[in-house]
Amino acid sequence: MEYRFSDTIESFKSSAVREILKLTQGKSIISLAGGLPNEQFFPIDAVKSAFAQVFDQGKGVLQYGLTEGFTPLRQSLSKHLERKGIRASVDNMLLTTGSQQAIDLLTRVYIDPGDVILVEKPTYLAAIQVFQSRKARIISVDCDADGMNLQDLESKILEQAPKMVYVIPTFANPTGKAWSLERRQGTLDICSRHGVLILEDDPYGELRFGGGDTFPSIFSLAGEANGSPVVYTSTFSKIVAPALRTGWVVGDQNVITHMTRAKQAADLHSSTMDQQALHVLLENFDLYAHIDLIRTEYEARMRQMVGLLRSKNWEGMQFIEPQGGMFVWVEMPESVDTGVLMKYAVEEGVAFVPGIPFFADQPQHNTMRLNFTHTDSQQMVEAFDRLDRALQKMQAAVS
Amino acid sequence: MEYRFSDTIESFKSSAVREILKLTQGKSIISLAGGLPNEQFFPIDAVKSAFAQVFDQGKGVLQYGLTEGFTPLRQSLSKHLERKGIRASVDNMLLTTGSQQAIDLLTRVYIDPGDVILVEKPTYLAAIQVFQSRKARIISVDCDADGMNLQDLESKILEQAPKMVYVIPTFANPTGKAWSLERRQGTLDICSRHGVLILEDDPYGELRFGGGDTFPSIFSLAGEANGSPVVYTSTFSKIVAPALRTGWVVGDQNVITHMTRAKQAADLHSSTMDQQALHVLLENFDLYAHIDLIRTEYEARMRQMVGLLRSKNWEGMQFIEPQGGMFVWVEMPESVDTGVLMKYAVEEGVAFVPGIPFFADQPQHNTMRLNFTHTDSQQMVEAFDRLDRALQKMQAAVS
Repeated sequence: MEYRFSDTIESFKSSAVREILKLTQGKSIISLAGGLPNEQFFPIDAVKSAFAQVFDQGKGVLQYGLTEGFTPLRQSLSKHLERKGIRASVDNMLLTTGSQQAIDLLTRVYIDPGDVILVEKPTYLAAIQVFQSRKARIISVDCDADGMNLQDLESKILEQAPKMVYVIPTFANPTGKAWSLERRQGTLDICSRHGVLILEDDPYGELRFGGGDTFPSIFSLAGEANGSPVVYTSTFSKIVAPALRTGWVVGDQNVITHMTRAKQAADLHSSTMDQQALHVLLENFDLYAHIDLIRTEYEARMRQMVGLLRSKNWEGMQFIEPQGGMFVWVEMPESVDTGVLMKYAVEEGVAFVPGIPFFADQPQHNTMRLNFTHTDSQQMVEAFDRLDRALQKMQAAVS
Repeated sequence: MEYRFSDTIESFKSSAVREILKLTQGKSIISLAGGLPNEQFFPIDAVKSAFAQVFDQGKGVLQYGLTEGFTPLRQSLSKHLERKGIRASVDNMLLTTGSQQAIDLLTRVYIDPGDVILVEKPTYLAAIQVFQSRKARIISVDCDADGMNLQDLESKILEQAPKMVYVIPTFANPTGKAWSLERRQGTLDICSRHGVLILEDDPYGELRFGGGDTFPSIFSLAGEANGSPVVYTSTFSKIVAPALRTGWVVGDQNVITHMTRAKQAADLHSSTMDQQALHVLLENFDLYAHIDLIRTEYEARMRQMVGLLRSKNWEGMQFIEPQGGMFVWVEMPESVDTGVLMKYAVEEGVAFVPGIPFFADQPQHNTMRLNFTHTDSQQMVEAFDRLDRALQKMQAAVS
């Protein structure tokens, strides 16, 4: 049979990160490539007993659920979000299969082919993939350590008339950077003024280092959910565990209603086993003490990685010490193509993600993303020795 | 903020069935409307211990999984499918969030706006919703008790040049009908000859009444998965439980690869907790004995419903006694609009699904779908008394 695929399959190239994850599976390669939380800190006993308690409620727990998601979990999430200044009722919330699905569903109901979406430079590659599959025109806005350049944002809004701006203001994937309050407020003001919807993706916001308060979300700065110019999404993947695949999205009730109908066609609903267990977990488990534990442990790993980067002191290297999250973004000198470096690195037994796939346009081939959450202290040292050898071998080969 | 939604939101109208489910929630209405399996037969102890065994494997079970789905489950599913004459390796299989997601993912990678999809008359309404959201042209093929009319199928293929034919040949939702072998083979031959892909949706095939063998899937008649003109999808929702939201799709490796990439953008992967638990369940639980139990219990309920329909003997009513599945499809005389009847029925305290949403075109307003799996024997009697009163009141009001 000769298959006649749709013309969107071009946009569904397999993500570089996940291909590298496959490549390294089983091998003796130390991977700084993944975006994996550290298994060591998964609260497995709490999760196990949460599931057991769900089953004790009887056979009804195994029935079909609502597309919107398990209502008691939406209620407890609503309380959780209130602590972060996010006021959203259950009617302003949809539970999704990870926050990835929230990005996909909003794109389906809000973006038409040819619509413009502004993104950070660089940005989350799997979001680029979703926007491309919808045939959106993706244009990146200049950024610095404090977030989006507001002048460039406004001029591109005036030039390109985008429908949506997609941002990860807190400990972004891949840059690990946290936007300043001024940039958050400025982006909100500019987008509100021009009627541009903001999709705020916040999977890492809780993973703040240094014990400070979490950064205010742009959504919380905007106030009420209904009528809000911001749609906010987050997930349990980083603060509880990814296997439960439960994320949420909050926004204007009308936006949520349209996303819910799109979800009904996409998969009827996500796993209600996971949703019911997470509800029990939130009732009986000190999530905030757990988040503090993860923050402390991840900060120690970040400090080790930053220390190793400083000690290697590769010529012309630049990076910003992250204030949270899971990644360090490294910029090498112009002369270094991290795609080429990756080949040498894998030969030496270490993997990372070259920066190119994180750029919607004008890729910087001299960048790379390093994950510090998943590698233990000893391996981290070894990883940087291997990376160092890879860099030397590449430079020797070039010269 | 003034929202500017995409023009696909029109196609995402909330499904009639689920709106009625909401309508009836909590009320003292007896619902023959849902497509719900009977909680009574959920194997909760087996599912509970399966989850417990998964947690005993350690914290790694809570990590991210492969987009393709948990490999050991795909391996055990491959064995399960072999019993049904379906030869598919793990590389020919993708695990999805219910078979609903399989329909959505294949539509994304195979259908472009304006492409023609042929469907049964009537067909599964949530599939119509997916095809509409993709802006496909949906055309229904004449059907009778044995399946699609092969002459009409071939002439519409010649007229309309469809890319895909969507069928539910075994105990369909909504009709409950089972296609004859001749129609299965004929549809396969015609579609193969014209290079039209067949999407075979088989959520109910295991629920065969009368103890006979399950009907051969069109996929199994086609032979090898690679190069097959058939993509086959099914689910655990009806034979284990819906809350675990795990379905699967099998087909040509290249088709599966493209669907997997589309899924990566849609949600990265489905719940691996559910997938790991289902794998343990298949290893330790006699699924086939359990399926036999469900078949026997559902057959008894079907016989009671058919008996009640015969005893009410509404003037001009027609229906076919189903050989399996969960539904009886009733055709009333032309004069009866089941949409109007539904209003009287809800007043009397009984709900069903009017037939109209199941038609892609030329809707028959005198049809309705009745579910027999979810209502106990006593309520079933009461339900038909109420339906009878609703019909009388409607006819009195009309005349």
